[in-house]
Amino acid sequence: MTDLKAVARAAREFAEDRDWEQFHTPKNLTMALAGEAGELAAELQWLTDAEAWAATTTTGAAQDRFAAEMANVLIYLLRLSDITGIDLLAAAQTKLATNAERYPVELSRGTAAKYTDLN
Amino acid sequence: MTDLKAVARAAREFAEDRDWEQFHTPKNLTMALAGEAGELAAELQWLTDAEAWAATTTTGAAQDRFAAEMANVLIYLLRLSDITGIDLLAAAQTKLATNAERYPVELSRGTAAKYTDLN
Amino acid sequence: MTDLKAVARAAREFAEDRDWEQFHTPKNLTMALAGEAGELAAELQWLTDAEAWAATTTTGAAQDRFAAEMANVLIYLLRLSDITGIDLLAAAQTKLATNAERYPVELSRGTAAKYTDLN
Amino acid sequence: MTDLKAVARAAREFAEDRDWEQFHTPKNLTMALAGEAGELAAELQWLTDAEAWAATTTTGAAQDRFAAEMANVLIYLLRLSDITGIDLLAAAQTKLATNAERYPVELSRGTAAKYTDLN
Repeated sequence: MTDLKAVARAAREFAEDRDWEQFHTPKNLTMALAGEAGELAAELQWLTDAEAWAATTTTGAAQDRFAAEMANVLIYLLRLSDITGIDLLAAAQTKLATNAERYPVELSRGTAAKYTDLN
Repeated sequence: MTDLKAVARAAREFAEDRDWEQFHTPKNLTMALAGEAGELAAELQWLTDAEAWAATTTTGAAQDRFAAEMANVLIYLLRLSDITGIDLLAAAQTKLATNAERYPVELSRGTAAKYTDLN
Repeated sequence: MTDLKAVARAAREFAEDRDWEQFHTPKNLTMALAGEAGELAAELQWLTDAEAWAATTTTGAAQDRFAAEMANVLIYLLRLSDITGIDLLAAAQTKLATNAERYPVELSRGTAAKYTDLN
Repeated sequence: MTDLKAVARAAREFAEDRDWEQFHTPKNLTMALAGEAGELAAELQWLTDAEAWAATTTTGAAQDRFAAEMANVLIYLLRLSDITGIDLLAAAQTKLATNAERYPVELSRGTAAKYTDLN
């Protein structure tokens, strides 16, 4: 399972095998994704920046938990892509192109304020 | 840009070109991902299930907005993967294997309640 | 403990007693609130609309869990209010007044599309 | 409008006046709350801790935006409370009592790790 399509296929088969496709509607998967994004945030919520770097970059239980939450977000993104027919990689490519126009290199360099305001 | 690694590389270069890597810490990217997950939910929040299916599966402005929010979530996942060294596809593969043990096919078939309780 | 100020005071004392005020920074509490909002969504994510109405309006374990997640969101809102000095009730009053201007009754009646677009 | 009940009543009347109660289902309001929690996080996502303290505690546009997002979260909590009959203040009181048992003062003092693990 070395590419995104293989993971998407495995996630679909997982749902099919359990007859869970009935639960995988756009609204339900979007709620599930928001739930997993919340769990990802919860992993780091009380840590200092230094502790969060250590937790996410050092092999161990904390990194494994963080990786599992990242995986959950990806799996729900892939399920959403699968049921809607939206091409996730093409959408990301389009978005990066749009962002490149919105944030010209010269005007955006090192400017968090502008980034935040325009985002 | 046909695979996940190419998108991850483009997202990194986008940040590098603007000197935005300084903002891309584990906590900041996790907050940004939660923000985008919230915007994804906001796209569908007042729609009926039927309207949400139509909005996300019919070519048009609503689908484009939804795809752009999905892209934002993916881009922040890829940035997190890049700065932490966590292999996103391997993490998803591990998570699907864990879930297969937690939710045996025979016990889980069509059972939303169990799915919710164990999740 | 019959009003919002008493709950806010109790939440502050809970943190003080455990020396947890050091963790209650604006960013950390905002991440924690996002985490609890995600758990709230997770309670309903696989339910139909009818099941979600039943789960949240019928006395029982599901309603208790939902109420506890609502409580968590409120507690973090109150902690944010406490550390920033932002008056939560005044902010809500201001926001409702702003919304009344943005969504005039005559133009907004029963119009989900407009609501979504302007929101 | 000096107490929580008055704000809850104003939020309900706002919805009634626009015939928006039809959109205020448990699932929809939960998605909307997650969306607003995401916007709250987005206000602080690229700021350092010091910048986030300044943004949220100094009178000005950034604090006003943050207060408005906090207000949005509260308004959706109150709408959820209103449609489900869940008493928000009682739920918070119950939750603080539960937390006091889960996190005994002596064992929890200043311990972020324990806080995170048990949470």
